[in-house]
Amino acid sequence: MTINATHDPSLKSWVASANDADTDFPIQNLPHGVFSRPGEAPRGGVAIGDQILDMAAAVAAGLFDADLEGIANAAAASTLNGLMASDPAALSALRTRLQALLTLGATEQDAVTRCLVAAADAQMHLPAAIGAFTDYMTSAPHIAAARHDRPEGKLPPCFWSLPIAYNSRASSVVASDHVVERPLGQSGSDAGAVFGPTRAMDYELEFACFIGRGNALGRPIRLADARDHIFGYCLLNDWSARDVQRWESVLGPFQAKAFRTTISPWVVTAEALAPFREPMPARPADAPQPPPHLTNATHDADGGLAIRFRAELRTAAMRARGEAPAVLSDTCFANGSWSFEQMVAHHAIGGCNLQTGDLVSSGTLSGVALSSAGCLAEITAGRFPVALPDGDKRLWLEDGDELTLRGRAERVGFTPIGFGACRGVVSPAVDFQP
Amino acid sequence: MTINATHDPSLKSWVASANDADTDFPIQNLPHGVFSRPGEAPRGGVAIGDQILDMAAAVAAGLFDADLEGIANAAAASTLNGLMASDPAALSALRTRLQALLTLGATEQDAVTRCLVAAADAQMHLPAAIGAFTDYMTSAPHIAAARHDRPEGKLPPCFWSLPIAYNSRASSVVASDHVVERPLGQSGSDAGAVFGPTRAMDYELEFACFIGRGNALGRPIRLADARDHIFGYCLLNDWSARDVQRWESVLGPFQAKAFRTTISPWVVTAEALAPFREPMPARPADAPQPPPHLTNATHDADGGLAIRFRAELRTAAMRARGEAPAVLSDTCFANGSWSFEQMVAHHAIGGCNLQTGDLVSSGTLSGVALSSAGCLAEITAGRFPVALPDGDKRLWLEDGDELTLRGRAERVGFTPIGFGACRGVVSPAVDFQP
Repeated sequence: MTINATHDPSLKSWVASANDADTDFPIQNLPHGVFSRPGEAPRGGVAIGDQILDMAAAVAAGLFDADLEGIANAAAASTLNGLMASDPAALSALRTRLQALLTLGATEQDAVTRCLVAAADAQMHLPAAIGAFTDYMTSAPHIAAARHDRPEGKLPPCFWSLPIAYNSRASSVVASDHVVERPLGQSGSDAGAVFGPTRAMDYELEFACFIGRGNALGRPIRLADARDHIFGYCLLNDWSARDVQRWESVLGPFQAKAFRTTISPWVVTAEALAPFREPMPARPADAPQPPPHLTNATHDADGGLAIRFRAELRTAAMRARGEAPAVLSDTCFANGSWSFEQMVAHHAIGGCNLQTGDLVSSGTLSGVALSSAGCLAEITAGRFPVALPDGDKRLWLEDGDELTLRGRAERVGFTPIGFGACRGVVSPAVDFQP
Repeated sequence: MTINATHDPSLKSWVASANDADTDFPIQNLPHGVFSRPGEAPRGGVAIGDQILDMAAAVAAGLFDADLEGIANAAAASTLNGLMASDPAALSALRTRLQALLTLGATEQDAVTRCLVAAADAQMHLPAAIGAFTDYMTSAPHIAAARHDRPEGKLPPCFWSLPIAYNSRASSVVASDHVVERPLGQSGSDAGAVFGPTRAMDYELEFACFIGRGNALGRPIRLADARDHIFGYCLLNDWSARDVQRWESVLGPFQAKAFRTTISPWVVTAEALAPFREPMPARPADAPQPPPHLTNATHDADGGLAIRFRAELRTAAMRARGEAPAVLSDTCFANGSWSFEQMVAHHAIGGCNLQTGDLVSSGTLSGVALSSAGCLAEITAGRFPVALPDGDKRLWLEDGDELTLRGRAERVGFTPIGFGACRGVVSPAVDFQP
């Protein structure tokens, strides 16, 4: 994936909002998603400024030549798995055409205008049928930072040799703005088990990719080929019940993470992110290098991505007063020590077959500074409350709290692109009688 | 699910092999599966003795009245998810009709005979599209038995309060007789990481259920309702790479289990197993009882299942000489301490949505005796070889080894029913150049 004419920062759109300095969706981005308006069936669209290009309408309007109609239809479907499985060259041709249609001066402006839907009027859905959701743990500070009650800061022995992961639950992944009920669950101690709504509701700031083309069962993916299997990227909030997690984790997290996972609904394509590639972060001097099948010079030179992330909290009171959110986490992808290409190659090394639409996440992206920690378990450890601007404070998330993740890829000389909101409001636990 | 006329042990079939004392598929069983013959598309069938009733052919022959045609078509499909999602009353009506068609003296014998396919001529496929595969760890001896290098025999503190589980990998689940390549993977120690084919290939004897009807996201399943969500059962071999597992497990097993999981392809319905229900196994005197939402008198009286299991090994040399297999594991479901109903209720307690076709497994069913241990990690610990009848021995599985799981539900006064074979042969690792 190389930088090409579609990344030209001088390009402007006739959709005025796409030219705003702070939009996540300038004409250089063009992420894919699935949307609907009330009473309509979900269908594929492309974000441009504060508008959505309705791909089904655009196809019906004859805006794509015969050679692009197949892939344009895939981008118009109610799940984008077909689009994700497409050949990168075809995806690139679609991007070029979409950009031409939306560029200032496009002769098709009137026809395309009739295919625009205001994003404010639309509900977003999951962009794909997600067969599997794999969650990695690539941030050393997330595991080992010398904070609060973990002054020793030890990493697992395998940390620098392979990206650590577990299988998480795919069925409960939802798109931004889906309700997030406080889960019921079991916690416990030597005194015994306790059952009820979690008392330690947390978020985790993560960044994830969607698998494009999969691999056959029993056939590993070489690191050099791994990038060809990634369709695009989104933000991911891995909501966590920390008391449940502490009690249940013998074979890893299970119910502590299974109740809900929220992703940003727009999938920013691998091609859109090409300008933001950067070298892999340096390893500590005393850390081993990755084994030969997880490193090579080409990969190491641009396996990184220059993306910053924030987690923002607005309590119910702050929302009622119309106040700006408090930033709980301010971090970046470089706080992880493994690339998505390495995650993909490791995932398939034993022959496990990745499938189109699989979601593969970085895990919590925490830096060394407390302000860059990606979850409350690190920020407060459940004992040191974080103060909010209005004097309120939090150890864990409370009912009514709105947690939003945001991300932005930035590099001098290029137009910044973003991911939209990954947002959820914690609602009270459901009533349950055994 | 109660015992009814379909469980009558005096029933015989006009399919002679179904009346053999040692068949897994007498007329009281009637499990569902998906099969094909060379050049044919996979489709649903019902096992009877050494034959398969081709459900598509049976529907085409007009063997089902209008009120059964919908569910009979679901049983004829290339994946049985539609059948699994069906109402238990409809499933029961289909069972009654299938049994009538196959019972000695049935007037439809000639027509049904034309719908039979010899099982020996058929290849079996996965019975369902499996959205998720959850693996529990319900056997206390599997974790804590005082064997070899674990004389202390400690259970995790939560063991008696909840069924411990992890999310495993669904995409690499295959039906019996699918090839199982030795996986590549990473192991390691303080001296560093080592990459190559696993040197500690193991099996795990497990028993699993298929979820029938799911639950809505955010809506827990009460224990009292859990049985209604289980369609049927199969054997499951959770192939494991122990060296990989030891090195990678921080958030639980990942690549050590992701390369392949084999299930027996016939799904024995919950109704067929009704006669074999039994009380939950007694807990040790010093173990806490389950919390209130995971126990009630009705459940505890028949949450168990009287099923015995075996794991059989035949090396390439034994197969070449036509020798009988060596039994490595001889165990039973009662060696697990949690029922499938408890596993289902716990799985959904936080609001996680189970979906039709999800596979939920017991984990390795090991008893206290070494002969009842369900995997080589317990039998040999990688250091105490198990001797085979021909003088050969094994620490771990070697290339060419055939491992077969078998299971049989037995109770005095009822016809025993079985599950067919869950079989795989270990083949050499694929050639891989980084």
